[in-house]
Amino acid sequence: MRDEIFELHPNLSADFHPLGRRGAIHLLLRRNAALPWFILVPETDALELYDVPTPLRRELDQLIDALARFVKARFACDKINIAAIGNIVPQLHVHVIGRRRDDCCWPQAAWGHVHETRSYSDTDLAALVQALANEVPNGR
Amino acid sequence: MRDEIFELHPNLSADFHPLGRRGAIHLLLRRNAALPWFILVPETDALELYDVPTPLRRELDQLIDALARFVKARFACDKINIAAIGNIVPQLHVHVIGRRRDDCCWPQAAWGHVHETRSYSDTDLAALVQALANEVPNGR
Repeated sequence: MRDEIFELHPNLSADFHPLGRRGAIHLLLRRNAALPWFILVPETDALELYDVPTPLRRELDQLIDALARFVKARFACDKINIAAIGNIVPQLHVHVIGRRRDDCCWPQAAWGHVHETRSYSDTDLAALVQALANEVPNGR
Repeated sequence: MRDEIFELHPNLSADFHPLGRRGAIHLLLRRNAALPWFILVPETDALELYDVPTPLRRELDQLIDALARFVKARFACDKINIAAIGNIVPQLHVHVIGRRRDDCCWPQAAWGHVHETRSYSDTDLAALVQALANEVPNGR
């Protein structure tokens, strides 16, 4: 079974809370709560977006949009930053980051510019998982 | 006519060479040749990808993929970085950046980390425009 052999890259597991899956796509939240920073990790060996097989790619694209709308509204963001970088962690992952003019590193891009550390409470996380279940269902 | 009223944000015109259009999407190349750094600018007032109207969005998505494949091959890149950020320049633009392990700021993300300046020659630019015309035609 595909589910049994797919493993998240250890850097991703270390830095992000797992928030569940949507089909074959894992949804995670950066443990550092300085920014509402999510990633989506599709279960694929592809390293570039253009190499993700078509059905999974479509689900991923739809989920990116749905998550971006959710983050924009829930965290009252001024801008959503979306990116697939992967220079350090090769396992394909797409960043969906909510940005506000009053956040820790506006207007800089988040990568390498977050110098503040905060945590989510268990209550925050549970509420977020519930809201995501309602508002960002399976991308299929 | 839409074409007559759409104007590129002055920061984009200042920092990027225009390389032509594909339908209603402008293709540009960062003047600093330290990295092969392209952007795509769709003619839209939308500020977030998820707000780009469907026909244009589809063209944009296809063009991102085609440009990414082109950049990967032509510049012998190890990774393609794709992003929509827009914290500083609100006009919607998607970055397609070719990265190599031996480039100026590997493995850092490019934004805010390029501290080297190089230029493209006119010959380089002409060859690139020609190759793009052949290999990255209209995304439609």
